Amino acid sequence: MTALVLPAMHPVTLDATTIRISEIFGPTIQGEGALIGKPTVFVRTGGCDYRCSWCDTLHAVDSAYRHDWTPMTPEAIMMQVEILSGGQPITISLSGGNPAIQPLGDLIALGRQMGYRFALETQGSIAKDWFADLDILTLSPKPPSSGMETDLEALDACIAAAGINPRSVLKFVVFDDEDYAYARSIANRYRDLDVYLQPGNHTPPPPSETDALIDMDGIMTRMRWLIDKVGADRWFSATVLPQLHTLIWGNLRGV
Amino acid sequence: MTALVLPAMHPVTLDATTIRISEIFGPTIQGEGALIGKPTVFVRTGGCDYRCSWCDTLHAVDSAYRHDWTPMTPEAIMMQVEILSGGQPITISLSGGNPAIQPLGDLIALGRQMGYRFALETQGSIAKDWFADLDILTLSPKPPSSGMETDLEALDACIAAAGINPRSVLKFVVFDDEDYAYARSIANRYRDLDVYLQPGNHTPPPPSETDALIDMDGIMTRMRWLIDKVGADRWFSATVLPQLHTLIWGNLRGV
Repeated sequence: MTALVLPAMHPVTLDATTIRISEIFGPTIQGEGALIGKPTVFVRTGGCDYRCSWCDTLHAVDSAYRHDWTPMTPEAIMMQVEILSGGQPITISLSGGNPAIQPLGDLIALGRQMGYRFALETQGSIAKDWFADLDILTLSPKPPSSGMETDLEALDACIAAAGINPRSVLKFVVFDDEDYAYARSIANRYRDLDVYLQPGNHTPPPPSETDALIDMDGIMTRMRWLIDKVGADRWFSATVLPQLHTLIWGNLRGV
Repeated sequence: MTALVLPAMHPVTLDATTIRISEIFGPTIQGEGALIGKPTVFVRTGGCDYRCSWCDTLHAVDSAYRHDWTPMTPEAIMMQVEILSGGQPITISLSGGNPAIQPLGDLIALGRQMGYRFALETQGSIAKDWFADLDILTLSPKPPSSGMETDLEALDACIAAAGINPRSVLKFVVFDDEDYAYARSIANRYRDLDVYLQPGNHTPPPPSETDALIDMDGIMTRMRWLIDKVGADRWFSATVLPQLHTLIWGNLRGV
């Protein structure tokens, strides 16, 4: 694994284009959703407007970790990405936390000039006009088991902001029948978007750099259950995929 | 799992449109390659021109199993598929054995009239003109570890027969460095085709209806190794995916 966790850097002048970075690592593969299995470098931002009960990236969410988040300019981020990718353009996965909190427009513009492609995943609570400059936007509204409430108007605004240029898809973490019903309901609201269903991972957060244990049996049981559900409901337009990185590396960070 | 293994049927008159069927089952998900995670019904034909050392579907390959293969008309096959899908069109995955041995043109034409989509996977040793009527053609040339030799002219002919209508992709099972080098070499020959790399499964064949044991550690070790390889070689256009059905169900049949 050519992974590299971001070293501490000298402080930069904070301005409207400075991005709070939790970690940059890769190349690895995208472990979930529409780009599953595709090589990518992750750029994970720090900070989130949600606190999902089963969050698996608390180190990029909880402000207790904020001292680990480094303010970086778009240029500094792309320099780090170039080191990891050997200067060869790759898909950059923007993740978080909620990356929509950060001012990513300049980073995306710079990276695209250099030939990189951009995928972003967000819960869809905050819309940004630079969503239109992405290659793929994964909207992952959080189901009831998360303990969060979905603001449908905000989700509408995200989809409207992306427009027709990026491929926009929906991804749902599903733990139980209630989550599944939620996914069906949201999917019905946006019938043009492809849907990815992902069995939830009950492994207690926070993940760590050493503890790779996961609830493999639970994930696989929910995976089989989800496949049965979409089959029984003839929901043949849905795609059912586990988090591949969790199966491969457990909850390890930086892979 | 709404799976259904084909019951024995009354003999039909054998003619040029009769297809030897090993099993029909689903709906389940496609476990590998470009359609990973997508709901599908499998139509598996019996018979193969190859004998790969690590074949995981010997029950559809070895003529010792030929008494389990049922000759069926396209109409009878679609009737079975309709029962499984509840009459709602789904992607039909044509697999084998080598399904290119069978006369599948009429089946594909009939199914498409009914709204179904067709994916086919073959090693690329036999070209058929009806490849052009598929939605997706997965060519899976067999690497050195299989013990088979690749006929590149036959593979060229398969790609030419498919033409521009279906999406054609390459998929390689990879066990070791030699297999990996083979995959790179074939991929270089067909630069327009997307490439899927799949870690090999050493679990001893034949799979059975009861024995679900697999070499999970070996598969995952090869998965991590493959991800490192494509990262180190900057082969960012490749996609690395395990056989999901093997992780979920082991070597069980009919899922």
